[in-house]
Amino acid sequence: MTRRKQLKLGAMLHGVGSSTSLWRHPDIQPDASVNFELYKRWVEKAEAGKFDLVFIADGLYINEKSIPHFLNRFEPLTILSALAAVSKRIGLVGTLSTSYSEPFTVARQFGSLDMISGGRAGWNVVTSPLEGSALNYGKKEHPDHDKRYRIATEFLEVTRGLWDSWEDDAFVRDKASGVFFDPAKMHALNHEGEFFSVKGPLNIARSKQGQPVIFQAGASEVGKDYAAKHADAIFTGHETIEDAALFYQDVKRRAASFGRNPDHVLVFPGIGPVIGSTEEEAESKYQEVVRLVSPENALIYLGRFFEHHDFSQYDLDAPFPELGDLGRNSFQSGTDKIKAQAKEKGLTLRQVALSAATPRPTFIGTPEQVADRVQRWFEAGAADGFMIQSSVPHGLEDFIEHVVPILQERGLFRTEYESDTLRGNLGVPIPANRYSEAAKASEPVIP
Amino acid sequence: MTRRKQLKLGAMLHGVGSSTSLWRHPDIQPDASVNFELYKRWVEKAEAGKFDLVFIADGLYINEKSIPHFLNRFEPLTILSALAAVSKRIGLVGTLSTSYSEPFTVARQFGSLDMISGGRAGWNVVTSPLEGSALNYGKKEHPDHDKRYRIATEFLEVTRGLWDSWEDDAFVRDKASGVFFDPAKMHALNHEGEFFSVKGPLNIARSKQGQPVIFQAGASEVGKDYAAKHADAIFTGHETIEDAALFYQDVKRRAASFGRNPDHVLVFPGIGPVIGSTEEEAESKYQEVVRLVSPENALIYLGRFFEHHDFSQYDLDAPFPELGDLGRNSFQSGTDKIKAQAKEKGLTLRQVALSAATPRPTFIGTPEQVADRVQRWFEAGAADGFMIQSSVPHGLEDFIEHVVPILQERGLFRTEYESDTLRGNLGVPIPANRYSEAAKASEPVIP
Repeated sequence: MTRRKQLKLGAMLHGVGSSTSLWRHPDIQPDASVNFELYKRWVEKAEAGKFDLVFIADGLYINEKSIPHFLNRFEPLTILSALAAVSKRIGLVGTLSTSYSEPFTVARQFGSLDMISGGRAGWNVVTSPLEGSALNYGKKEHPDHDKRYRIATEFLEVTRGLWDSWEDDAFVRDKASGVFFDPAKMHALNHEGEFFSVKGPLNIARSKQGQPVIFQAGASEVGKDYAAKHADAIFTGHETIEDAALFYQDVKRRAASFGRNPDHVLVFPGIGPVIGSTEEEAESKYQEVVRLVSPENALIYLGRFFEHHDFSQYDLDAPFPELGDLGRNSFQSGTDKIKAQAKEKGLTLRQVALSAATPRPTFIGTPEQVADRVQRWFEAGAADGFMIQSSVPHGLEDFIEHVVPILQERGLFRTEYESDTLRGNLGVPIPANRYSEAAKASEPVIP
Repeated sequence: MTRRKQLKLGAMLHGVGSSTSLWRHPDIQPDASVNFELYKRWVEKAEAGKFDLVFIADGLYINEKSIPHFLNRFEPLTILSALAAVSKRIGLVGTLSTSYSEPFTVARQFGSLDMISGGRAGWNVVTSPLEGSALNYGKKEHPDHDKRYRIATEFLEVTRGLWDSWEDDAFVRDKASGVFFDPAKMHALNHEGEFFSVKGPLNIARSKQGQPVIFQAGASEVGKDYAAKHADAIFTGHETIEDAALFYQDVKRRAASFGRNPDHVLVFPGIGPVIGSTEEEAESKYQEVVRLVSPENALIYLGRFFEHHDFSQYDLDAPFPELGDLGRNSFQSGTDKIKAQAKEKGLTLRQVALSAATPRPTFIGTPEQVADRVQRWFEAGAADGFMIQSSVPHGLEDFIEHVVPILQERGLFRTEYESDTLRGNLGVPIPANRYSEAAKASEPVIP
């Protein structure tokens, strides 16, 4: 009998929240984005709830209009390493940009996190949507969208090559003979490409999950191809089950067209569930948060997606303005969607801005109602799992405490970890080392 | 009454050891360099021994001749972050090269470690002595010694500027008014220099120790000036008290000539104490380790300091060969010294190689004898403290268990931490934020 397929869960940890004004709520610790004890408690709760992973997002540029969490927060690799020391089973996934870093350093730091955590690391590969990042890295200009993906492709190729520098049985460590390693199982990469030249070998071996898990979050055509070709998991966002299912099928089809098993590319929509003991209580939790947002903050928040465009120059109650190509070189798919919806529904600037700043949650209601919706999306082929974030105070904790037990009772979610590695829990394969006999043997043999 | 000045102690953590063959000893765990549980235990012991800090060294290039520890080890920022989560008072210092990294990333990662640990981070600024590093970072050639120091100077200037992006009272977090921060206390750096252009601000605030502690280890003329100008602490190495005292006085004099208080530049010789309950036991511990080294390994080890020069081409028992300028662009001061000593004492290649691979420890003997020597160096003005490494199995643990109590009894070392920050324990000042009123007020005022 095969075990029934279960859904996967991740927890987005982002301090005071990913919105402009959540920090003003009385139940939010206003220093949460730089409070290690709080991050530690969140990870302990998520691990007690048998979550697959925690996720730390990132950005490389701020200005006075950035949302509070972005101004002053932990850097992903350092906070994930600290969290590795206070957890045992949960995966540790963080965002890092391929546009402003060096593959040797990235391979080392994720490799080291993977070793420290005993095979629980994951890397969310991003290409940095914000123009300003270039200014912090001495670059004259931010590379355009397609070039960023060409860099990202070569970057990941190099990183993965470096991760395979040592075959899994390379370290002999035989005290009697004095042989520490087998030189035939140490491999220099000798990469010479369009953007990078890297000799190797890397000075850290593979962990027991082989390589860190690769996440990707691009939603443009180029982004989806990249994810379907290279990623073990995709982090996405959709408001309706129909949109989510279309995206899901699209990505799985692309993965198959690249010769991959579609089950090995997991799709995780991000959701910010709002849970109450009654529907009314849930609704009132949401309305409390909406009331915290001023129209000025909403305009600034919206502006961030459009290269920090100043929306205060327009009439709040006039139709959403015509913006031309603005936003296409940053959050391409997001800004295209905002423009299309505004046009289609005839929305005003105020409506667009407020709904961007505190979008109405799709997953709102009693624990049973939220569990029902989770089940529906999962069984309809719209998600392999979900990335849970707190869009209201304690949203993540409420989900762990009240929704997870229902999902477990229904057999939809684990009651115990299957593995002590992230790949093991996600059910994605350990990549064979490219230099090993096993990898060579799996090549077609001419009879 | 002023408190009597006490010495400072750091623990070098380096897995299977910084020599070619220590890993072969029966009491060494041969996977120690990638064993997190072991690193955790070391930190717990060092903290129980009231050490000021643990220190993680680093390198960016390996080949088949590298010593075992270098081949497969943790990366400093990730392992230090993990160790931050399992310690409370001890400082966390790591090496990072200014030749192959970006100041925005370095400022962020050390800033984040400093925030996670509550003000216990330190950065050992190095310029990467190994030629091969360039090959892992897509550079055509390794910059020469002086240029590396020009880069390092500008790099540190940028990093420190970024660390001051937020004044200490910038984050108001007033829920009632909705004011998260005071924009007048957020500062963009707008740096445009010879090697870097970085806008800022940094997306993390200062910890309670203001900025991470700066360590430096250069011993060339340029290196000593750099350390005396910029560092809070200097990591060095000397075989005799006379050499150590000369170095100490030289650095303190340089610091004073740059207008600094010499007490704010602490000098830490690195030592590998060998401790036995009798002199004979200590000697036999050292001889056990010497016996593990083959002449072949010793030649390879020596070669590393000379740009991986192949010493196997020479007669082992002939005088040390003439090498010209070889080694001057990597470990300049070290290689100059090896050449001079070989000439002066008429040493053979075998003698030079074996003594490089397992140098006779200066601090060897009973706990009392080692404590006496520590006291003598400290009181003679040859050291403000020591960086302790295990050059024999459990060398660090023996020092903590047997020598520290003697130093404490003599009033030479703390019995309790003075502070919960690294600056607080070292007694080096918190740098005022360059933009704050306090810093402005300390400028000379014309009457």
